[in-house]
Amino acid sequence: MFRLSLQVRDYECDLQGVVNNAVYQHYLEHARHAFLRAQGVDFAALAAQGDHLMVIRAELVYKAPLKPNDHFEVMVRMKAKGRLKAVFEQQIVREDGTVIANAHFEGANIRQGRPARLPEALRLCLTEHNEAMR
Amino acid sequence: MFRLSLQVRDYECDLQGVVNNAVYQHYLEHARHAFLRAQGVDFAALAAQGDHLMVIRAELVYKAPLKPNDHFEVMVRMKAKGRLKAVFEQQIVREDGTVIANAHFEGANIRQGRPARLPEALRLCLTEHNEAMR
Amino acid sequence: MFRLSLQVRDYECDLQGVVNNAVYQHYLEHARHAFLRAQGVDFAALAAQGDHLMVIRAELVYKAPLKPNDHFEVMVRMKAKGRLKAVFEQQIVREDGTVIANAHFEGANIRQGRPARLPEALRLCLTEHNEAMR
Amino acid sequence: MFRLSLQVRDYECDLQGVVNNAVYQHYLEHARHAFLRAQGVDFAALAAQGDHLMVIRAELVYKAPLKPNDHFEVMVRMKAKGRLKAVFEQQIVREDGTVIANAHFEGANIRQGRPARLPEALRLCLTEHNEAMR
Repeated sequence: MFRLSLQVRDYECDLQGVVNNAVYQHYLEHARHAFLRAQGVDFAALAAQGDHLMVIRAELVYKAPLKPNDHFEVMVRMKAKGRLKAVFEQQIVREDGTVIANAHFEGANIRQGRPARLPEALRLCLTEHNEAMR
Repeated sequence: MFRLSLQVRDYECDLQGVVNNAVYQHYLEHARHAFLRAQGVDFAALAAQGDHLMVIRAELVYKAPLKPNDHFEVMVRMKAKGRLKAVFEQQIVREDGTVIANAHFEGANIRQGRPARLPEALRLCLTEHNEAMR
Repeated sequence: MFRLSLQVRDYECDLQGVVNNAVYQHYLEHARHAFLRAQGVDFAALAAQGDHLMVIRAELVYKAPLKPNDHFEVMVRMKAKGRLKAVFEQQIVREDGTVIANAHFEGANIRQGRPARLPEALRLCLTEHNEAMR
Repeated sequence: MFRLSLQVRDYECDLQGVVNNAVYQHYLEHARHAFLRAQGVDFAALAAQGDHLMVIRAELVYKAPLKPNDHFEVMVRMKAKGRLKAVFEQQIVREDGTVIANAHFEGANIRQGRPARLPEALRLCLTEHNEAMR
């Protein structure tokens, strides 16, 4: 399973003194993109060639808040859902083992404003992962 | 139903040229806080007195992306879920009527790190809304 | 002088309970882009055609912090600086008249990674403004 | 000199495909706070006890933009300016040695809405740094 180690930055915390809800989506996105890049799928390069990988569904369950300077890991698991969607199961875990959030994302590829087949690099990557999970 | 009118700011768009996923959470949070304030519930004041209204669950279904300068409305409906949770059903609609996103948020009150009864101002507000929906 | 009316959103405040320093740059950028659009210069459209208006210098003097829900205005004045630069003098003023920040920005046009003449729409706009200031 | 190694995250890039101007302020702030913490000065803890270290002046000169996935370092040098201000000279340098930005920040301590002496931990830290520079 892919893991990305990060640390909370003070500006990510809001007036409650903890990381703002929306920032977790940033962490999760950053981990998904790092995961994809590790598989040879470059999000920015795909966007430049007209393949826009878009999140179509996001579910986040917040268990405990992150605080300034906390160290944590963001996990990423990916699998195919039909021919047009990629599903990401993610978890944020603080370094002491506390689960901070569970998340489920579904993504699709949009070309010229319409749903399109997933880019080949991503399909290859999904095939390998699906086989690895059997 | 509460509606807040907003417009996309260029810095909210990412390298795909559309509003970044996480920014929708910001729009939705801002609308919830504006809604609460319109009912006399001040988020920042509650935080200052130790009542931390926290999102514990977020579900977002992204239907279409917002682009630079788009005008849109964020809708908010609230109801109680048991004695400890407030539920918000939200929708983002572009000014041409296109549904951009549907969202469901659940919030709880955390005092000194533990779940606590919802603050009285919010309970009163929930009672009125539940009655209005009957 | 161009003025844009805005209100602080809770998520823009950091753990000090006031608007984070970097967010003022967002406000100032948003006001510059709104100002330009009001003159017929569309930042996103220029970027799409390869004209990247980039900030090359920013100076901000912070006088007083903005707090949750504060209403404020962002002022914009623009003038040319030589043939390649546009200068923006800006101010953020809270609705009670308190000056929150003074700012000075210099921008240039970058095409294919190199400094280029300012786009025609912007040059026209600068000429009008310089004449108006005489 | 203090150095913090970071990498660009895709969500930090705007519709021009490069890191948004305001985000550099986030990088610079994060490096200042990391620097202070390395000296035993905890920004969030100071805020909690009523000492609000606030930026009162920021000057940024942008030399070249950062792009998705770029690795870079943020440098921090600090010195006292009179009895009430701390000055930070900072630089952002991409891993290939390209200078991305030079920055100068001035900070002051605000207690109960008024300028106050710098917190003792910060004064000690400044004394050591000033001596080290002689």
